[in-house]
Amino acid sequence: MRPVALLTDFGLADHYVGVLHAVLEREAPGVRRIDIGHQVPPGDVWSGCFVLRCAWPSLPADAVVLAVVDPGVGGERRPLAVRIGGRWLVAPDNGLAAAAGVAAEVIELDWRRMGLPAPSATFHGRDLFAPAAARLARGDDPATLGERIAPDGLVPCPIPEPQGNGGTWHAVVVHIDRFGNLITTLRAAAAPPGAAAWYGAPRPARRVRSYGEAAPGEVVLLEGSSGLLELAVNRGSAAALTGLGRGDVVDITSGE
Amino acid sequence: MRPVALLTDFGLADHYVGVLHAVLEREAPGVRRIDIGHQVPPGDVWSGCFVLRCAWPSLPADAVVLAVVDPGVGGERRPLAVRIGGRWLVAPDNGLAAAAGVAAEVIELDWRRMGLPAPSATFHGRDLFAPAAARLARGDDPATLGERIAPDGLVPCPIPEPQGNGGTWHAVVVHIDRFGNLITTLRAAAAPPGAAAWYGAPRPARRVRSYGEAAPGEVVLLEGSSGLLELAVNRGSAAALTGLGRGDVVDITSGE
Amino acid sequence: MRPVALLTDFGLADHYVGVLHAVLEREAPGVRRIDIGHQVPPGDVWSGCFVLRCAWPSLPADAVVLAVVDPGVGGERRPLAVRIGGRWLVAPDNGLAAAAGVAAEVIELDWRRMGLPAPSATFHGRDLFAPAAARLARGDDPATLGERIAPDGLVPCPIPEPQGNGGTWHAVVVHIDRFGNLITTLRAAAAPPGAAAWYGAPRPARRVRSYGEAAPGEVVLLEGSSGLLELAVNRGSAAALTGLGRGDVVDITSGE
Repeated sequence: MRPVALLTDFGLADHYVGVLHAVLEREAPGVRRIDIGHQVPPGDVWSGCFVLRCAWPSLPADAVVLAVVDPGVGGERRPLAVRIGGRWLVAPDNGLAAAAGVAAEVIELDWRRMGLPAPSATFHGRDLFAPAAARLARGDDPATLGERIAPDGLVPCPIPEPQGNGGTWHAVVVHIDRFGNLITTLRAAAAPPGAAAWYGAPRPARRVRSYGEAAPGEVVLLEGSSGLLELAVNRGSAAALTGLGRGDVVDITSGE
Repeated sequence: MRPVALLTDFGLADHYVGVLHAVLEREAPGVRRIDIGHQVPPGDVWSGCFVLRCAWPSLPADAVVLAVVDPGVGGERRPLAVRIGGRWLVAPDNGLAAAAGVAAEVIELDWRRMGLPAPSATFHGRDLFAPAAARLARGDDPATLGERIAPDGLVPCPIPEPQGNGGTWHAVVVHIDRFGNLITTLRAAAAPPGAAAWYGAPRPARRVRSYGEAAPGEVVLLEGSSGLLELAVNRGSAAALTGLGRGDVVDITSGE
Repeated sequence: MRPVALLTDFGLADHYVGVLHAVLEREAPGVRRIDIGHQVPPGDVWSGCFVLRCAWPSLPADAVVLAVVDPGVGGERRPLAVRIGGRWLVAPDNGLAAAAGVAAEVIELDWRRMGLPAPSATFHGRDLFAPAAARLARGDDPATLGERIAPDGLVPCPIPEPQGNGGTWHAVVVHIDRFGNLITTLRAAAAPPGAAAWYGAPRPARRVRSYGEAAPGEVVLLEGSSGLLELAVNRGSAAALTGLGRGDVVDITSGE
């Protein structure tokens, strides 16, 4: 049986995440379950895409990912199962389903074909997406989940690509993590080791390899754990120190 | 082996929930474990009952539910294992044990009969309830957990039933979820599709089927995922917009 | 296969904990996983040690504990696997690795010997500690993880031992839990049943056995669930009522 990894904006204050786990266990007894995270801000597809991309390379090669950030629940957006390499991603077609890579196969989920009761208007995670993930985990034929559709018409991931321009990249802050690190959209591999960042006033941040190389209170630029450049402060919060927030621009150059 | 579903007011800031999982795994190696939720406000039996009822229909048919919201720990309240249909509910007799349905069988847990050390004064979850849940999960005879007692003397669930009165139901807000939805005590099936709600000043809220049918900023009434009527705002917080809190009255009529 | 218990300061807002679970499942498919807790304040080794010690006695006898509170990540501190009785503790050598008991065997983790890619500068939890825990869980020879080193040179746990002085113990507040209980460093077994505590102004707190023995609003001293004395208020918060914080002194005497 495939393991199932869960990612939602449900938070942990209510029973919603617990209900997804219960449905998975009920429909695929003994299934191995991994919580990627459930604190995506409510309805924030951009953050959902970011977290999905960060976790993706660490997941088991045959994982089923159940990703529900679904502000359009009950509306027209399509519920999908998307095969990407050896993994399946079960998600709404609002950018999330397209965030993890190129689709090799796409199924539009159909509760009638799956033999399910009509979904509620507000909780497709429980009524449609989790049952679909459980079926994929236990090895059901994907064709029993819905119609196979063309893999090239998915709503694209809304995170903007960094724009390069004569040695300078214009990136944005895509995520602020628990430690106050400001993660940008620019992959570290795209910028030379001597790179520096300009943000705000503008102020410069030099590139270092680890937090410990920064002077006390210094904002530095380094490669974070997902391969993206981030602004960080050693044992402090770059978010608090700079005042930057998500979507704010960070310019990165090849250094002085 | 039966799966075990956990529900507590322990929060996630400490090690208390982790210790329950550790005891379950120690006493029933390989047991499948499901977290329903642990953010019930401290000592709030009413909220514990609500969350339990919402998750109950989604659980595996043979689940053992370990529910610990126990402000009377160390006092006189009885620790129980209650069979409801094919499931067992392990909980204190403070309303929680009676919240999920009609008891077919009730055991008063007895640490001596279970061969356990004397419980601490403050953590019966670890010392009594989790060991009992583990034994039920691995298939021990319930009679080895304590004395069988009459199933009809349990402390009732404290959530008030909605009161009907000539086409109007007086319900209360029973829960505010992460999205700011105000969930009432009235089952949607009890109110006709054309129903409307009056709350506060009083102001009306019309009934819709999904969040998307609401105008921007409009408070609407709809059937939530647990079958209860709720006040909601599309992509906004009904709690913030109305100022209503838990226990506040919402009147629901058959519509204009 | 051994179960793995996880303890970190990663919080639950990001994907970091999920990635540890993913790596464990990828490297040791089907491994049983237990979350002790992930809300240790960022970089707070003292709190990490405290939580580890509290959970330790409840863990399965053959558990592998993956404990990552690692403000020195990317610097010189040694990554270790420490055998304590029948368990393995995988942690940085910053006090955390020494917090759970006397080491019988110590391995300095070596990514080259483990055949891993070079670790990132910022996420050794994913790149080094979790792969090591997975290998120990599945039964790999510990010698394949790195060099065996002397077990007596570990950085000691930073939590101060209580100081005794003619019938009075000087303890400190080591943790404030979700319920506002102030947990001290003094083991209850060290103080007689008639003990009392002085804190703040100074004000006395009498020793009781359970929360229910306290008068409304009374601050009492009792044995908490980990065997440590704590200041508590029945159905209230001792932290809020006393204003005491972590590290503040509490004097405990043999009573009047």
